[in-house]
Amino acid sequence: MSASASSAAAAPRVRALVFDVFGTVVDWRSGIVRDGAALSAAKGVDVDWPAFADAWRAGYQPAMQRVRSGETPPATVDRLHRVILDDLLPRFGLAMLDENERDALNRVWHRLDPWPDAVAALARLKRRFPIATLSNGNVSLLVDMARRAHLPWDCVLSSEMFPGRFKPDPEVYLGAARLLDVAPAELLMVAAHPSDLAGAANAGLATAYVPRPLEYGAGSALRDPPGERVFDLVARDFHALAAQLGA
Amino acid sequence: MSASASSAAAAPRVRALVFDVFGTVVDWRSGIVRDGAALSAAKGVDVDWPAFADAWRAGYQPAMQRVRSGETPPATVDRLHRVILDDLLPRFGLAMLDENERDALNRVWHRLDPWPDAVAALARLKRRFPIATLSNGNVSLLVDMARRAHLPWDCVLSSEMFPGRFKPDPEVYLGAARLLDVAPAELLMVAAHPSDLAGAANAGLATAYVPRPLEYGAGSALRDPPGERVFDLVARDFHALAAQLGA
Repeated sequence: MSASASSAAAAPRVRALVFDVFGTVVDWRSGIVRDGAALSAAKGVDVDWPAFADAWRAGYQPAMQRVRSGETPPATVDRLHRVILDDLLPRFGLAMLDENERDALNRVWHRLDPWPDAVAALARLKRRFPIATLSNGNVSLLVDMARRAHLPWDCVLSSEMFPGRFKPDPEVYLGAARLLDVAPAELLMVAAHPSDLAGAANAGLATAYVPRPLEYGAGSALRDPPGERVFDLVARDFHALAAQLGA
Repeated sequence: MSASASSAAAAPRVRALVFDVFGTVVDWRSGIVRDGAALSAAKGVDVDWPAFADAWRAGYQPAMQRVRSGETPPATVDRLHRVILDDLLPRFGLAMLDENERDALNRVWHRLDPWPDAVAALARLKRRFPIATLSNGNVSLLVDMARRAHLPWDCVLSSEMFPGRFKPDPEVYLGAARLLDVAPAELLMVAAHPSDLAGAANAGLATAYVPRPLEYGAGSALRDPPGERVFDLVARDFHALAAQLGA
């Protein structure tokens, strides 16, 4: 990749860390494929679950944009996921799912597994810094996920706390700095997605890029390539990030 | 006390718990006396720290009321504590404290110790229910406190997330239920203060009264007596609460 770290000098100024969640901390695609396969077996329907997962995820940014623009009313990510899901099901031969089955499938986003390094490295980082989510996912989703996966957040911060806003809107990053009582430059945004980090940098936050090349499956290309973007830190996983931060 | 529990029937409906913090989870008065005594020794000044603590705490409700009414602009509890502190210091012979010393003393609210049952019983409750703060204290204060005292919150909820509102305003309790994605009646507010629980009940929440008779020191009367109020649950400490909830 072309991404580079500007310098290690940013590290000493960091006073708290916030993390993108879907794709950065948890592997959403494998979780959907896992629960989807169980559903296929139960219903006797053959579904291309990796394609289903990718289509579900692809609906997410446009759905948030419709809320931002006022085209649709403010809604949680749980609700946006459900609207996308209801649209997808007939296309994948799953129109027969009833309300309870749809709700259970929609909650797969609450049951995602962390990348292998995440839990141990977050515990390591937590010994030195306050660590929080900063996700567009709604609070209850992030709480359910953390309880199941043992993610040791000091607090759960979400765009839901800033109504009508989603990352990469600056209000979300600035709101997190305000709630954590640190200057924007003292807050390190950790994400696998350069577009998220560009939003963070635009709001004055420090940035750490942790690519997750398996996000879209083995052998896939990065959907959000870093290009020539520069980040304050670049690390191959959260352990390497902890080492760079002296944690 | 006259307080009574309406019935144990509320318990099965509970899906999440939120806790008042100052006085309910942590012993603010002993913490102020502890750090105050160290400050007195360092400065060679004799101060009645229990009286200081009580005066500091007594300024809290009026300060929040001035924000609610619009008399003073929105401010965090850290900031309100500091305004009250600056007013108190000359009265207690501490006008000589400089900016750094005032800031350090003001942050004693971040360094409070839990009541003896709190940490273990919260861990027990957490195995069965999501547990969160619901405090007028600002987020960074609650995060610092939880990190130091090992309070195992699933998430930190604060009036700070509902600008211009403080408990017992209904928007705070209803906002917590919304963020946790439970109906108000499914959310159990746990507090040592009947006035807080009255606000929670007014918003439709379930209530658990856990009196902390040592809040204002041994042998003191309850400042916020329950009178004839009825709560869904009454427990002598958080372990007893966990037992009543089957946790």
